Amino acid sequence: MAILSEVATEVLIPIAAVIGIAFSIAQWIIVSRVKLTPSPPGASRSKDGYGDSLIEEEEGLNDHNVVAKCAEIQTAIAEGATSFLFTEYQYVGVFMSIFAVVIFLFLGSVEGFSTKTHPCTYSKDRECKPALFNALFSTVSFLLGAITSVVSGYLGMKIATYANARTTLEARKGVGKAFITAFRSGSVMGFLLASNGLLVLYITINLFKIYYGDDWEGLFESITGYGLGGSSMALFGRVGGGIYTKAADVGADLVGKVERNIPEDDPRNPAVIADNVGDNVGDIAGMGSDLFGSYAESSCAALVVASISSFGVNHDFTGMCFPLLVSSMGIIVCLITTLFATDFFEIKAVKEIEPALKKQLIISTALMTVGIALVSWLALPYKFTIFNFGEQKEVTNWGLFLCVSIGLWAGLIIGYVTEYYTSNAYSPVQDVADACRTGAATNVIFGLALGYKSVIIPIFAISIGIYVSFTIAAMYGIAVAALGMLSTIATGLSIDAYGPISDNAGGIAEMAGMSHRIRERTDALDAAGNTTAAIGKGFAIGSAALVSLALFGAFVSRAGVKVVDVLSPKVIIGLVVGAMLPYWFSAMTMKSVGSAALKMVEEVRRQFNTIPGLMEGTGKPDYANCVKISTDASIKEMIPPGALVMLTPLIVGTFFGVQTLSGVLAGALVSGVQVAISASNTGGAWDNAKKYIEAGVSEHARSLGPKGSDCHKAAVIGDTIGDPLKDTSGPSLNILIKLMAVESLVFAPFFATHGGLLFKIF
Amino acid sequence: MAILSEVATEVLIPIAAVIGIAFSIAQWIIVSRVKLTPSPPGASRSKDGYGDSLIEEEEGLNDHNVVAKCAEIQTAIAEGATSFLFTEYQYVGVFMSIFAVVIFLFLGSVEGFSTKTHPCTYSKDRECKPALFNALFSTVSFLLGAITSVVSGYLGMKIATYANARTTLEARKGVGKAFITAFRSGSVMGFLLASNGLLVLYITINLFKIYYGDDWEGLFESITGYGLGGSSMALFGRVGGGIYTKAADVGADLVGKVERNIPEDDPRNPAVIADNVGDNVGDIAGMGSDLFGSYAESSCAALVVASISSFGVNHDFTGMCFPLLVSSMGIIVCLITTLFATDFFEIKAVKEIEPALKKQLIISTALMTVGIALVSWLALPYKFTIFNFGEQKEVTNWGLFLCVSIGLWAGLIIGYVTEYYTSNAYSPVQDVADACRTGAATNVIFGLALGYKSVIIPIFAISIGIYVSFTIAAMYGIAVAALGMLSTIATGLSIDAYGPISDNAGGIAEMAGMSHRIRERTDALDAAGNTTAAIGKGFAIGSAALVSLALFGAFVSRAGVKVVDVLSPKVIIGLVVGAMLPYWFSAMTMKSVGSAALKMVEEVRRQFNTIPGLMEGTGKPDYANCVKISTDASIKEMIPPGALVMLTPLIVGTFFGVQTLSGVLAGALVSGVQVAISASNTGGAWDNAKKYIEAGVSEHARSLGPKGSDCHKAAVIGDTIGDPLKDTSGPSLNILIKLMAVESLVFAPFFATHGGLLFKIF
Repeated sequence: MAILSEVATEVLIPIAAVIGIAFSIAQWIIVSRVKLTPSPPGASRSKDGYGDSLIEEEEGLNDHNVVAKCAEIQTAIAEGATSFLFTEYQYVGVFMSIFAVVIFLFLGSVEGFSTKTHPCTYSKDRECKPALFNALFSTVSFLLGAITSVVSGYLGMKIATYANARTTLEARKGVGKAFITAFRSGSVMGFLLASNGLLVLYITINLFKIYYGDDWEGLFESITGYGLGGSSMALFGRVGGGIYTKAADVGADLVGKVERNIPEDDPRNPAVIADNVGDNVGDIAGMGSDLFGSYAESSCAALVVASISSFGVNHDFTGMCFPLLVSSMGIIVCLITTLFATDFFEIKAVKEIEPALKKQLIISTALMTVGIALVSWLALPYKFTIFNFGEQKEVTNWGLFLCVSIGLWAGLIIGYVTEYYTSNAYSPVQDVADACRTGAATNVIFGLALGYKSVIIPIFAISIGIYVSFTIAAMYGIAVAALGMLSTIATGLSIDAYGPISDNAGGIAEMAGMSHRIRERTDALDAAGNTTAAIGKGFAIGSAALVSLALFGAFVSRAGVKVVDVLSPKVIIGLVVGAMLPYWFSAMTMKSVGSAALKMVEEVRRQFNTIPGLMEGTGKPDYANCVKISTDASIKEMIPPGALVMLTPLIVGTFFGVQTLSGVLAGALVSGVQVAISASNTGGAWDNAKKYIEAGVSEHARSLGPKGSDCHKAAVIGDTIGDPLKDTSGPSLNILIKLMAVESLVFAPFFATHGGLLFKIF
Repeated sequence: MAILSEVATEVLIPIAAVIGIAFSIAQWIIVSRVKLTPSPPGASRSKDGYGDSLIEEEEGLNDHNVVAKCAEIQTAIAEGATSFLFTEYQYVGVFMSIFAVVIFLFLGSVEGFSTKTHPCTYSKDRECKPALFNALFSTVSFLLGAITSVVSGYLGMKIATYANARTTLEARKGVGKAFITAFRSGSVMGFLLASNGLLVLYITINLFKIYYGDDWEGLFESITGYGLGGSSMALFGRVGGGIYTKAADVGADLVGKVERNIPEDDPRNPAVIADNVGDNVGDIAGMGSDLFGSYAESSCAALVVASISSFGVNHDFTGMCFPLLVSSMGIIVCLITTLFATDFFEIKAVKEIEPALKKQLIISTALMTVGIALVSWLALPYKFTIFNFGEQKEVTNWGLFLCVSIGLWAGLIIGYVTEYYTSNAYSPVQDVADACRTGAATNVIFGLALGYKSVIIPIFAISIGIYVSFTIAAMYGIAVAALGMLSTIATGLSIDAYGPISDNAGGIAEMAGMSHRIRERTDALDAAGNTTAAIGKGFAIGSAALVSLALFGAFVSRAGVKVVDVLSPKVIIGLVVGAMLPYWFSAMTMKSVGSAALKMVEEVRRQFNTIPGLMEGTGKPDYANCVKISTDASIKEMIPPGALVMLTPLIVGTFFGVQTLSGVLAGALVSGVQVAISASNTGGAWDNAKKYIEAGVSEHARSLGPKGSDCHKAAVIGDTIGDPLKDTSGPSLNILIKLMAVESLVFAPFFATHGGLLFKIF
C-alpha cells in the first residue's frame, strides 16, 4: 500500500485547493490597491507600498482626467462583457437543461429505469448501484461541471475587466509596474480556476461517496458528467466568445485600419469597445472555460480508469486519488513559480518581458517534475494493476511517474515549438513578413505553409508521449500524461490571461488619449502576450489530444469494446467521417466570423458616413450598437457548430453503434489536432509578422515598414485572415475533440446497450 | 464458371485497347487538319471538310501574320515544355534507377536471395516461385510502370502543345469549332492514356505468366510494381510540374496584373511563356501521370486481391481479369460518349459549353452502369469466395456489380458537388466574390470556409461507397469500387485535358494580338475548363481515397496482419503521425511555390526595369530566362517532398513494423483526403470568383467589377493564394496517399519478415 494514508489524502487535497484560492485572493487585493478614483499622487504612493524602487519614471500621475477616462472606459468594457455573458448563459442554460434531461433519460433507460442493483461491469461477482441512480448523479455532476465552468469564465472576465485599466494606469509609472499588475491579475484567474476546479471535484466525489460507498465504478462513472458539463459550457464559451471577439476585431480593422487609416483602438472607431469586450469574453472567459474543461476531463478520465484498476478492487482511495494529488501538487508548484515573476525578480526593461514569461514555463515544469516524483512515491504502491481492454497490466509507481512527466515535458516542447513559429524573434515569422514585399498573396501562402510546418514537431512530441505512456500504463498512462501536461495549469492560465489584459490595457491607453510613450509600453506587454497566447493554445491543443485519447480509451473500456479494428467497414467509415468533422466545424465558425464581420463593417461604415464630425473627433460614435451586433451574431452563430459537436456522438452512437463511434472519435482526434495547431500558429505568425513590421526593431523590419506602407498593408490582410483561424476555429477544435470523447464516455452505457440501431435493422 | 471463356478474355482486352488507340489516332488526324502554315482561305476550307455548317463567322482568316505568330508561340511553348520534361526525367530517372535497386535488394533479401521455391503465403500446401524472382519481376514491372507513365505524360504534353494554337486559330471561325478542336485534342490524350495503360499491363501479365504459370500469387504480387512505378513517376510529375506552373503563374500575375496593370497573358510579360509551358507540364503531363497511376494502382490492387480469392485457387483466369475487363468496357463506353460531344451534337453558343462537358459525365456514367452489369454477368461466376483478413467471404456477381457501380456513381456525386462549390453559376462562389467588397481578407476567410465545407458531401459519398463495397466484398469490393470510379477515365481525362488546352489557346490569342472577340471565345472555353478541372480533381481525389484503401487492404493481407487495432500504441502513433504527413508535405510544396514565385517576381521586375521599351511594347522580353527559373526551381524543390513520400513507408516499415505502418497509411488517408479536397476546391472557387467579377454577366457581378476595381483586386489576391493550393499541394496529396499505400504493398514481404527493427531491439 501507499505511504500516504487515506485520511492524509482527504486532508491534503482540500488544503492545496484552499491555499490556491487564498493566494488568488491575496493577489487580487494587491491589484486592487491601484485606485481608479483620482487621488493625490503622494497619497497613492504611500498606499501601495510594494516595490517603490521599480518606479522608473512617472508620467501624468496628476492627470485626474485620464484616470476618470480610464475608469469610464473600463466600466463600458465590463458592462459590455457582463451583458454578453449573461445573454450567452441564458441561451446556453436552456440548452444545458435540455441536455441534462437527455442525459438522465438516456442513461436511465439503460436498464429500463429499474431501481434494482446490477452486477458490476468489470467484476461480475459484485453488485453495483442501479443505472437509474447513475443517470441521476451523472446529470447532477454534469450540471455542477457546467456551473463551475460558468463561474470560472465569469470570474476570469470580472478579474480581467477589473485589471485592464489598472494596468494602463500603472504603465505611467513604468513597464515593470504595468507588467506586474497584468501578471498578478492573470494569476488571480489562474489560481482561482485551478483551485476551484479541484475543490468542486473533490467535494462532489466525497458527497457522491456517501451514496456510492465502495462502488467506485459507479461513483467515478457518474463523476465524468462533471467533465462533460465543463466542456459543453466551454464549447459555447469558446465558439460564442470567439465569434464575438473576431467579428468585432475584423470589423474594426477593416474599416478603421484599412479604409479610414486610423490606428487600432482609436476611440473614433465605433467597434472599438466591442473589440475590447471581445478580448474578455473570448480570450479570457472562453479560454478559462476551455482549460477548466480540459482539466476536469483529464481528471475524470484518469479517475474512471483508476476505479476499475487494482485501486478500485482493493479500495485504495489514495491510489485512486492520484490524479487529484498531482493537481494539488501542481497548485503549490505554480504558486512558488509565480513568486519568481512577481517577487523574486523584477522586470526593468521591455526586452525582459518575454524571457520572464518563458522562465515561468521552465521553472514550473522543472519544479513539477520533482513534485510528481514526490506524489508518485507517496501516494502509489510500488506495483499495481491496470485494466487494459480485457487484459491486466502491471504498472510500477516510477512507471507512472514517467507517464506524468512525459506529458509535462511534451507540453513544454510544444510550447517552445509554438513560440519558435509564432514569435517574430525567429526566422519563420520574419520570412512571412518578408513575403509581404510581393503582396498579401505571398504573405498568405507563406503563412499557411508555416502553419502546416509547425505541426510536425508537436505531433512527434505527442506521439512519443502517447507511445511511452500507453506502453507503460495503457489508457491510464495517457490520462495521467494529459494530467501532467495540465498540472501547471495555474501558471499556464496566468500567462494566458496576462495577454488579453495587456491588450485591453493598450486599448484603454489609446482611447483615454494617453501619451505615445505609455502606449509603447503597453504594446510591448501585448507583443509578449501574443506569443504566450500562442504557447497557451499549443498547450491547450496538446493536452486536448492526450485528454481526448484517454477519454476515448475510457469510453472503449466502458462500452465493452475490445478491439477497434481499422480493417472493419464500420470503423473505417467512422475514421473518414470523423476526420472530416473538424473541417465541417471550421467551415461553420470561419463563415460565422466572416458574416458577422461583414455586418460590423456595414455598421461602422454607416456610423462614419452618417454621424457628423466622427472622423474629426467631435462626434461621438454609438459603441452600444456595435456591441449589440457582435452579441446577436455570436449568440445566433454559435448554435450550429455547437449542435454539430454535441449531437454527433449521440447520433453516431445511437444509430451506428460503438464501433463506428470509436472510429469517429479517433478520426476527429488525429485530424483535428493538425487543423487546430496549424490554424492557431498560422494566425499567430501573421499577427506577429504585422507587429514585426510595425515595431521596426531591426534593419530588415524597417526595410518593410513603416505603418501604412504596402508591405504593412499586406501584413494587415494576413493578420485579419488569421484572426478567425487563431481565435475562433483553432481553439474551438480542442473542445470538439475532447467533448465528443467525454460525451461518448458518459453515454457509453446507453450506446453499449441500445446503440447501433441502423445496423440492427439492416 | 463464367460465361466468357479464357480465350475470349485474352482476345477482348487487347482488342478494346487497340480500338481505343485507333480512335485516339483518328482524333489526332482530324485535329491535325487545322494547318498552322498560312494558306489561302479557300484551300483551307475545302481541306477540312467537317462541319462547315458550324462556321458562324470568320475573322482574320486571311491574316497570315497571325497564323505565323501563333505557330511561333506554339513552338516556344512546346520547346519549353519538352526541355523541362527532359530535364525532369533525367533527375527522376536517376532516382528511379536507385529505387529499382532498392526494390530488388529489399525484396530479394526476404528469403536471403535464395533461388528455391517456397510454400505459398495463402495456400501452404502449394509451392510458389522464389522471392528472388519475385524481386526481379517486381523491379521490371516497376520500371515498366515508370516508363509507361513517362510516355503518358510526354505524349499528353505533345498533344496539348500541338493542339493549343490550332484551337486558337479555329476560334476565329466560331466558338463551336474551337470547342471541338480542344475537346478532340483532349480525347486524343484521354484515350491514348487509358488504352496504353491497359495494353501494357495486359502484355506484362501475359509475359510474366510464361514464367509464373499458375502461381497467381507471385504473378500479381510482382505486377503491383507496375502501380508503384506509375505512381512514383506521377508524384514527381505532379510536384515538379505543379511547382513549375504555379511559380510562373503567381510570378507573372504578381508583377503583371497587380503591379503593372497589364492583362493576363500579355506578351510584354516576360513570364508569360513560362506560364503557358507550366499549364502543359503541370496540368497535362502531371495530371496524365497521376490518373494513369491511379488506374494502374486500382487495377493492381484488384488483381492482387483476386489472385488469392477462389479465382486464383480455381485458376479462373477470366474471373481474375475482371478488373481489366471493366477497364476495357470503359474504353468502349467512353468512345461512344465522346461522339455525343463531337459528332451527335453541336455546340453553337458559349453557354452550351459547360452543359456539354457535364453531359459527358452523365452519359458515360449511365452507359457504364450497363457496361458493368454486362461484364459482371459475362465474366464472373454466380458465386465466388474472397479472402478477408484470415476469413473467407462469399460474394455474388451482382454483389460485385453493385460495388463497381457504387464507386462509379460516388464519383459522379463528387464531381457534381465539386462543380457546385467551384462554379460561379452557384451561390457559394458568388458569396466568396461578394466578400471581396470588404477586401482580400474576407475573400480569403470565405474561400477557406467554402473549401472546408465542400468536404462534407464527398466524404459522405466516399464513406457510403466504402461501407457498401467493403460489406459486400471486403477489400476486393473497395478495389473494384475504385476501378468503377476510374472506369470512365478516358472521358475524364479528355475533359481534364480540354481545360489547359483552352487556357493555352487563350494565351496564344492574347500573345498573337488577336481581336477581343476571339479572346472572349477562348475565355469562355477556359472558364468551363476551370470548373471541369475542379471536377477532374474531385474524381482524382475520390478515386485516390478508394485506391489507397484497397491497396492498404492488400498490404495488410500480404503482410499477414489480421487486425489493425486503434487501441494499440503502435497503431495510434502511426495514425497521428500519418495524419500529420499531408501537412508536412503541403508545407513543403506551398513554400516551394512561394519561394520560386518570389524569384520569378524579381526576374520579371528586373526585366521591366532594365529592358528599355518593354512596357511600351517596343522592347522584347527575355522569355527564356523565366523558363529557366521555373525549371531550376521546380527540379530543385520537387526532391524534398518526393523524398518524404517515398521514404516514409520504407523507414516506418523497416524500423517500426507493419502495425505502425498500417496506422500511418490509415492516418494519411483519412487526413489527406480532407486537405486535398478543401485545398483544390478553395483554389477553384477563388479562381472562378475572380472570373465571375471579370465576366460581369449578372447585375450582382457587375456591381463588384469591373477589372481593376478594388473588389477585383481583392479577388486577384484570393486567386493567387489559391494557385498553389489547387494546382500543387491539393492534387499532389492524391499521390501521397496512394503512393505510400502501393509502396507498402510492394515491400510488404520485406516488412513482414524483417520489419520493426526498433521494437525488436527495445
